[in-house]
Amino acid sequence: MTARVGVIMGSQSDWETMKHACDVLDELEIPYEKKVVSAHRTPDLMFEYAEGAAGRGLQVIIAGAGGAAHLPGMVASKTELPVIGVPVKSASLNGLDSLLSIVQMPGGIPVATVAIGKAGATNAGLLAAQILGAFEPEIRERVRSRREKIKQAVLESSEQL
Amino acid sequence: MTARVGVIMGSQSDWETMKHACDVLDELEIPYEKKVVSAHRTPDLMFEYAEGAAGRGLQVIIAGAGGAAHLPGMVASKTELPVIGVPVKSASLNGLDSLLSIVQMPGGIPVATVAIGKAGATNAGLLAAQILGAFEPEIRERVRSRREKIKQAVLESSEQL
Amino acid sequence: MTARVGVIMGSQSDWETMKHACDVLDELEIPYEKKVVSAHRTPDLMFEYAEGAAGRGLQVIIAGAGGAAHLPGMVASKTELPVIGVPVKSASLNGLDSLLSIVQMPGGIPVATVAIGKAGATNAGLLAAQILGAFEPEIRERVRSRREKIKQAVLESSEQL
Amino acid sequence: MTARVGVIMGSQSDWETMKHACDVLDELEIPYEKKVVSAHRTPDLMFEYAEGAAGRGLQVIIAGAGGAAHLPGMVASKTELPVIGVPVKSASLNGLDSLLSIVQMPGGIPVATVAIGKAGATNAGLLAAQILGAFEPEIRERVRSRREKIKQAVLESSEQL
Amino acid sequence: MTARVGVIMGSQSDWETMKHACDVLDELEIPYEKKVVSAHRTPDLMFEYAEGAAGRGLQVIIAGAGGAAHLPGMVASKTELPVIGVPVKSASLNGLDSLLSIVQMPGGIPVATVAIGKAGATNAGLLAAQILGAFEPEIRERVRSRREKIKQAVLESSEQL
Amino acid sequence: MTARVGVIMGSQSDWETMKHACDVLDELEIPYEKKVVSAHRTPDLMFEYAEGAAGRGLQVIIAGAGGAAHLPGMVASKTELPVIGVPVKSASLNGLDSLLSIVQMPGGIPVATVAIGKAGATNAGLLAAQILGAFEPEIRERVRSRREKIKQAVLESSEQL
Amino acid sequence: MTARVGVIMGSQSDWETMKHACDVLDELEIPYEKKVVSAHRTPDLMFEYAEGAAGRGLQVIIAGAGGAAHLPGMVASKTELPVIGVPVKSASLNGLDSLLSIVQMPGGIPVATVAIGKAGATNAGLLAAQILGAFEPEIRERVRSRREKIKQAVLESSEQL
Amino acid sequence: MTARVGVIMGSQSDWETMKHACDVLDELEIPYEKKVVSAHRTPDLMFEYAEGAAGRGLQVIIAGAGGAAHLPGMVASKTELPVIGVPVKSASLNGLDSLLSIVQMPGGIPVATVAIGKAGATNAGLLAAQILGAFEPEIRERVRSRREKIKQAVLESSEQL
Repeated sequence: MTARVGVIMGSQSDWETMKHACDVLDELEIPYEKKVVSAHRTPDLMFEYAEGAAGRGLQVIIAGAGGAAHLPGMVASKTELPVIGVPVKSASLNGLDSLLSIVQMPGGIPVATVAIGKAGATNAGLLAAQILGAFEPEIRERVRSRREKIKQAVLESSEQL
Repeated sequence: MTARVGVIMGSQSDWETMKHACDVLDELEIPYEKKVVSAHRTPDLMFEYAEGAAGRGLQVIIAGAGGAAHLPGMVASKTELPVIGVPVKSASLNGLDSLLSIVQMPGGIPVATVAIGKAGATNAGLLAAQILGAFEPEIRERVRSRREKIKQAVLESSEQL
Repeated sequence: MTARVGVIMGSQSDWETMKHACDVLDELEIPYEKKVVSAHRTPDLMFEYAEGAAGRGLQVIIAGAGGAAHLPGMVASKTELPVIGVPVKSASLNGLDSLLSIVQMPGGIPVATVAIGKAGATNAGLLAAQILGAFEPEIRERVRSRREKIKQAVLESSEQL
Repeated sequence: MTARVGVIMGSQSDWETMKHACDVLDELEIPYEKKVVSAHRTPDLMFEYAEGAAGRGLQVIIAGAGGAAHLPGMVASKTELPVIGVPVKSASLNGLDSLLSIVQMPGGIPVATVAIGKAGATNAGLLAAQILGAFEPEIRERVRSRREKIKQAVLESSEQL
Repeated sequence: MTARVGVIMGSQSDWETMKHACDVLDELEIPYEKKVVSAHRTPDLMFEYAEGAAGRGLQVIIAGAGGAAHLPGMVASKTELPVIGVPVKSASLNGLDSLLSIVQMPGGIPVATVAIGKAGATNAGLLAAQILGAFEPEIRERVRSRREKIKQAVLESSEQL
Repeated sequence: MTARVGVIMGSQSDWETMKHACDVLDELEIPYEKKVVSAHRTPDLMFEYAEGAAGRGLQVIIAGAGGAAHLPGMVASKTELPVIGVPVKSASLNGLDSLLSIVQMPGGIPVATVAIGKAGATNAGLLAAQILGAFEPEIRERVRSRREKIKQAVLESSEQL
Repeated sequence: MTARVGVIMGSQSDWETMKHACDVLDELEIPYEKKVVSAHRTPDLMFEYAEGAAGRGLQVIIAGAGGAAHLPGMVASKTELPVIGVPVKSASLNGLDSLLSIVQMPGGIPVATVAIGKAGATNAGLLAAQILGAFEPEIRERVRSRREKIKQAVLESSEQL
Repeated sequence: MTARVGVIMGSQSDWETMKHACDVLDELEIPYEKKVVSAHRTPDLMFEYAEGAAGRGLQVIIAGAGGAAHLPGMVASKTELPVIGVPVKSASLNGLDSLLSIVQMPGGIPVATVAIGKAGATNAGLLAAQILGAFEPEIRERVRSRREKIKQAVLESSEQL
């Protein structure tokens, strides 16, 4: 099936975080593609990727990066698709640098930023689904159903205290 | 026209920030509604608002709040629509508290967080448009055209240095 | 015996922290109940819990959560009982996000916030006891006696240097 | 009427913040006393104040201080009454130093910490009332009624956008 | 004379800061060009600028930007010339976001980062001169002579205390 | 020999840090006493200790504590001897809370604050020696001689690269 | 009279802060000298100053600086006299940079750090007096008497609430 | 061959970080020297080193240090050569103190600051090469070729996801 979501990351080492976004997309049966695209080491590829994204059928892009994380914002500057940014936890500043580099975009070019690390990657997958779900009731239903399962898990976990 | 975007904020004083989101929606001709909904002072209204949002035809919610900013995350927990959170600059910590309260959501319930303050509110409006634009080429075209105008303004501003 | 203190937490994984609150309540013989209640995954349950708390005989609520920690503040918005918030240490920002999300409440709805992590949970149990002790000399006496024991332990520990 | 709440602050300059606590207590008709008590400049007075508080009929203490804010924690170490700490906004670090100095108490001696500055002082007054209200339905009712008024104000403010 | 240093900035509003870099270059008689180039609003122009810089005779690039400041790092990814990054003071986080977005570059693509704001812009001009001075004793001499003047000013200022 | 320096700490667990102060004092042959004195758990002992310090012959006090670290500042408020504060690394905020709680003293009561953790404790011992050395050339000589040894170690370490 | 305390600062603009140290020394009748000495602009003068300090009769040095504040630590590395560091409030980071640059000295060379800004400068004067007072009861008596006056002022200020 | 780059560090323990700068210089065949030079423990050596650097043929200096990291700035104050500062990750504040101590230099004396830790050290080596490369096309070519290799590695890594 044609990918509807593009999942990219600045380095292979970000995969450990970003796979949680892919897990959610798998679970919700949303076709996606995944790729290492580095803002600083492959800048031209990044621009090509962003420029071609909509034409290739993508509707949402998820971009994860750490430190001076420029990937989400630069991709956002080259496409009108919604771009979700995942701040990857960094070696010295625990992802605070990643978060600020992604979220503090100037007026004009938004990046939909989620939490630092694994929780953020999971939520990036869900947010992509919710964006698609704004138009497709079936996907919205899958999100609702996933929430219901999680809710049951919370209720049951209370027994374990 | 039926509102497609709901713009809510925790307090009337947030309007100075949040009007920038509405300005963008006006500019891009996207119908919206606006309302003060406080997580802490009108919690039931907040839940009603979130529960009824999709049924009323909203496709995206923009929620702004400051300090211990719970509005975006709580609304997100009660609707499957994508929720965009705007951290309003706060009195003592300059919006760092607002930002962390909004963006650091646990895995399961995402909030699409934008920058602190005016730039973030502007970008919330744009992000809402880009989300709609993922399905409606006409809106995407309006976003592209707005970007083109801004680009020209940048090019011309260079003459003023 | 009817529970006088409700100890809730956003996730089962918070138990490792929150059990220190329960240990203190056990030690001071104050009856309590404990439960996983998630602001984001079980929002309706959270509201029900808060609304029913006073009627069920609770006099104080202790709520622990991490990251964008909305549980204490949202529970506080739905009950007039005093709510004590425990910021649980978070994965990337060490609980600074939890702390700010809990303590920076807007004027109108207070949360009695304690320290991040284990020390905070212990103190939440003690603070609950001190609140009850404001009216019941016997409980105040138990707090005093616990302090006396700790003081002796400090004095003795000095010998170990 | 005998004071039930003691409102103390580290310096006269804190009054601009702390008066908001007193305003709430006035509004809710809870008798209180107010005093400048400095941890560093009048340490003996501070200890006397704390030691005598319960005997004089106080049931809650509200203590505000800024910078290396030791007043709330030291008072808490000398009384078994619940102590509410208000971090006053400081000259260089905007109250982050005040907040951490007050909230990060070691296990054994809790301080019920509220937000930095005016919102925190207002909430300190409310928290004191809620603590008393845990035993006195009439006070709880006044808190509920104040909340109702604020809720109406929020609903009306929405018309002003 | 052919420009040897390129001074670029993300927005016209950065000029108030960046002119201090130009003042130093004027003072040290180092030919430069200046331009508004926005990473997010004119990404293609930015790439063209960086790619053509060395060919046009530039030897050093100074790039100033605020918030999620991607300009210095992205320019650095497209040229082998040394790039000096100036973090412009931002509206809500005082330039801490700008600093981290510029300095925390991943291994592979360096940005020579200077202080936030005016002092940093001044130093960017000096650093460009010192880089040229590493090969041209005459420029190094001008830097030395400027330092001598500043030293005299310090010595005289001591009389004014 | 009569102790000239008093080394106190808020908890036995601070000893791992504070022993580095004692090691320096041993090395420089400056007599000292050491004790656990907790601001919050033994407040009266703390006051007694501070009040009696000068009379007992102490000339400098070194106080280490973590978190909401009130010990150094409170001791300083009860003695005119110079008090050196050592911020002990804390569990969640890495000692930033300890540092701000100790160093941000209000005008009137100074605490001579050193670095967080082991380096700070070592320097507390040295600072105490330097204070004594301001009057006693022999001690100043021992400090100088210790520095000379360290300098040699640095020079030799360069060979190991 | 021969100066016993040397008050130095990195720039004339620091005088507004550092004069508060001199005011205290005047008040306590402790002879001092004052001078602008810049670590970065007059490094040789700084070394001369530090090397000659003890020989000229100084017993304590107070050094104030802002931003990357190297003056206190570098002076400390060139003299065995106790050095007190005053972090001057900086333009963008409110003195947090100044504080960390001064206080986080490596093991071996201590700087006695006080609070950021005016309160810190006042306390630097007092700390210098207390250091001298450790050997001279008359100075200690003047410190005690100043504290007594401040205590009275606090007591009286309580009437003004 | 005569060293063109001087790599210095404040302590032998910084070598683990700083060797990454040397690895890059080795790889790019740029002759360098390396040395432990401590600002605080060998201040005179530091001044000699900086003063003699240009005369000995060095064209760039790389200086790494942690905590109150004064080495890069002080060396910069004693030479007109460009100085690159590497903030070494520190024990308690993860290098945030090192970063601010190095980057926040006052106007007049720049330090070209790179990222905290290993990535920064690698980039320091590259930045030194790029500075030399501004005049020597051959070195610039080696930098370009290294970048090409890294780009290929990124492209290939994408296959591993």
